[in-house]
Amino acid sequence: MESTLKFIGKVHSELKKLEDCPRQEGESAPKASIEIFPEFLQAARDIKKGSELLLLTWLHQSDRSEMETRPRNNPNAALLGVFSTRSPNRPNPIGIHEVKVISIENGLITIAALEVLDQTPIIDIKPKI
Amino acid sequence: MESTLKFIGKVHSELKKLEDCPRQEGESAPKASIEIFPEFLQAARDIKKGSELLLLTWLHQSDRSEMETRPRNNPNAALLGVFSTRSPNRPNPIGIHEVKVISIENGLITIAALEVLDQTPIIDIKPKI
Repeated sequence: MESTLKFIGKVHSELKKLEDCPRQEGESAPKASIEIFPEFLQAARDIKKGSELLLLTWLHQSDRSEMETRPRNNPNAALLGVFSTRSPNRPNPIGIHEVKVISIENGLITIAALEVLDQTPIIDIKPKI
Repeated sequence: MESTLKFIGKVHSELKKLEDCPRQEGESAPKASIEIFPEFLQAARDIKKGSELLLLTWLHQSDRSEMETRPRNNPNAALLGVFSTRSPNRPNPIGIHEVKVISIENGLITIAALEVLDQTPIIDIKPKI
């Protein structure tokens, strides 16, 4: 049983390879920009400078068959079921990121820090709770 | 551009019709159970009684073409782009729910309160940050 996920935009970042990516927000993640695809711009029209958002990404380079992992790739950690971890390797590799908008220009939303790869698809944006 | 989302389980709830659903957690949502499908049970093996989780659902009865909405269906509210709301009507109708596990029995995870319909697909489970 499955459904089809639409990509509503993508990330532009200086992080070009997985090895460059910090493991969590706050670990020196660089600034990034979000491009919203034209057919979804209307849904993004009320996002403003200063908005605090939950950004949902599709971590497209993940291994979707992995059911257990060692947290943070630590070889000494015990294996855990992936639903008890934040590993990107999971059946649906959805990333959830708390971000703050620092500017919007020509439909490109710049955010303060994001730890995902350049070209990562965006699947949803919600206001932070 | 799109990808395929796998359903990893589904919700069992007394909420059988959309009209029965409270709009947000905390507004008297009933207890619910989560059935994890057999091929994903290994990924859920470390979820325990007392675990606090982020549950990601696929709100399958939503209108995926809606780009603007009036928050909480209030006819007096201004129209907002859906990415600035928590409306279930959005390009990818992903729900994010903070839940607490009250028991696990025969692979069925019972949680204290959930405001989604019976049979709603589950797409991911993460530990609460």
